[in-house]
Amino acid sequence: MSKKNITTLKQIAEELNLSISTVSRALNDHPDISLKTKEKVISVSKKFNYAPNLFAKGFRSHKTNIIGVIVPNIAHYFTSTLLKGVISEAEIHGYKIIISESRNNVQKEAEMLETMKQFGVDGILLSLVRKTHNVDSILKVLEHIPLVLFDKVSTKVPCTQVVIDDEDAAFRAVEHLINTGKKRIAIIKETEKSFNSEKRFAGYLRALKNYNLEIDENLILSTEDISMHQGKRLTSILLSLQNRPDGVFAVTDGAAIGVIKTLKKHKIKIPEEIGVVGFSNSENSIIIEPKLTTIDQPGHRIGEVAFRALINEINNNDNTVNNKTIVIKTNIIVRESSFKSLVTT
Amino acid sequence: MSKKNITTLKQIAEELNLSISTVSRALNDHPDISLKTKEKVISVSKKFNYAPNLFAKGFRSHKTNIIGVIVPNIAHYFTSTLLKGVISEAEIHGYKIIISESRNNVQKEAEMLETMKQFGVDGILLSLVRKTHNVDSILKVLEHIPLVLFDKVSTKVPCTQVVIDDEDAAFRAVEHLINTGKKRIAIIKETEKSFNSEKRFAGYLRALKNYNLEIDENLILSTEDISMHQGKRLTSILLSLQNRPDGVFAVTDGAAIGVIKTLKKHKIKIPEEIGVVGFSNSENSIIIEPKLTTIDQPGHRIGEVAFRALINEINNNDNTVNNKTIVIKTNIIVRESSFKSLVTT
Repeated sequence: MSKKNITTLKQIAEELNLSISTVSRALNDHPDISLKTKEKVISVSKKFNYAPNLFAKGFRSHKTNIIGVIVPNIAHYFTSTLLKGVISEAEIHGYKIIISESRNNVQKEAEMLETMKQFGVDGILLSLVRKTHNVDSILKVLEHIPLVLFDKVSTKVPCTQVVIDDEDAAFRAVEHLINTGKKRIAIIKETEKSFNSEKRFAGYLRALKNYNLEIDENLILSTEDISMHQGKRLTSILLSLQNRPDGVFAVTDGAAIGVIKTLKKHKIKIPEEIGVVGFSNSENSIIIEPKLTTIDQPGHRIGEVAFRALINEINNNDNTVNNKTIVIKTNIIVRESSFKSLVTT
Repeated sequence: MSKKNITTLKQIAEELNLSISTVSRALNDHPDISLKTKEKVISVSKKFNYAPNLFAKGFRSHKTNIIGVIVPNIAHYFTSTLLKGVISEAEIHGYKIIISESRNNVQKEAEMLETMKQFGVDGILLSLVRKTHNVDSILKVLEHIPLVLFDKVSTKVPCTQVVIDDEDAAFRAVEHLINTGKKRIAIIKETEKSFNSEKRFAGYLRALKNYNLEIDENLILSTEDISMHQGKRLTSILLSLQNRPDGVFAVTDGAAIGVIKTLKKHKIKIPEEIGVVGFSNSENSIIIEPKLTTIDQPGHRIGEVAFRALINEINNNDNTVNNKTIVIKTNIIVRESSFKSLVTT
């Protein structure tokens, strides 16, 4: 810290026999402070070589124009689209973004929240660690700083939340397979009751019920780590069944690509014999052949909307806490893994 | 900012007739300061209700235990592996990481450097914006804060730099194609003289020269935006040549995947008729069929090494500036797009 910045507001206030708050408002050109007072304050602050640094200023007026973003895992395609949305919207509004990763660890999430708070960010966008059950550290931060949850959220935190409708998206994925004539549709999902997987499973069940299709326990497969490798492994199990499925809905594109790879290895015709649908419209979904039908999860848009919701909170001075959930629409992207225009269904 | 924190090191120093530096070192338990002095300083700091907050502390003693990382584009697979490496190493050393994106914009890069500096980070890891020509803002920051360049670097900045050897990696990619019997090897590269593309082109040229192969201008294709789409487009050009290539080296995996897709569309046998090699070992390289031979660019390791180099700079109190370049080894990952064990070469 340069010596210049060591001189403080307090000294200026003492010199002029004013309150610190008055000095601060004068330096921030507040309309309630007279021109005469402003001139005095500026003159004395010059005498003290007072050059407010970003943080000192931030602590007083909550205007660092910096937003903190905390996500569980930065090295994830969908997360990077979320961040892109936040960053592009921040640029429009003249805000800077600093990003941190909680490494899927509740303790680290709490630490990063504290760090962001001490940094004097104007607000925080948070996507929760999967296993965050105790939300105390978040509630504590929420008392001081505007905070919006996005993507991975919790009803235990009373604040604005921005999400996609996972249940509806999964319903539409399975409905699409049903519309192409499939009747025995398997699901590959996560074992753990994560934020998204549970809702996607609910959407799967609802679609089968709505169309009066049998729910067969043999077609419901779960895995700890929902990867391409697990998609391959579980497809081998599905193919070993006496009564094989004619469709597979995998709750991630990675697992769905594993399904396609194993079906191709066994020379099973896609989509004629087995149709496949994934979830997230990742880059990989158009690399694999046949191209993967999937749910477009609009990460960029979620990021944008979450940022705008946060800016509203920051500019909202009435100290009421918003507690609404904003649901972003998803779309199904139909490709060759589930639909061939020549196939009669 | 609380009133408590307004009391400064300076006041403690004046009260005790010590230098600010001595007070700071005493509060940080520095071995050069006597126990007696430490006790005095602690006693006076208590009298002043001196409770250094994270940033105030950071400004004085350079010990926030926070490292700032600035990258051109966060939504990029390779960048996310770099960040993973930095984050995992930081965890081991008890540091927190805050990340920011320069959006490939020189002005934003300078702003983020300034923001990080004002935040009081202990050090900065920087991957340069492609077009950074004027490095003044970086040199200015370097005077105050330890800084290490990684991945996208510049010899104009006198500091530790961590990179891969792009020239050597490209040489080995092309040499591998030559070893499989290819004699007319095309390159798909970036038009712009970016950090990496130029060196990869140099490696291509050196390999052809070393093996006495003709350099044919028709086989050197450039594109502004090195994407899958451009890989497809440029492959169509290569296939329209009277004297077609028998191998293609694309300087990114994305472009190489475009090459494979177009070759498959034209029923050209890979690798028998045309062998293909990419660059970076991205996730996609094992999704495409045939799987892509590529250069493994060890992002995680670059991140780790860059972090460790920065920690060395931070702990190095002699104020000399390190100016060494650390080169991380790459490997070629041979897959079906260039090599079939049954093919006689």
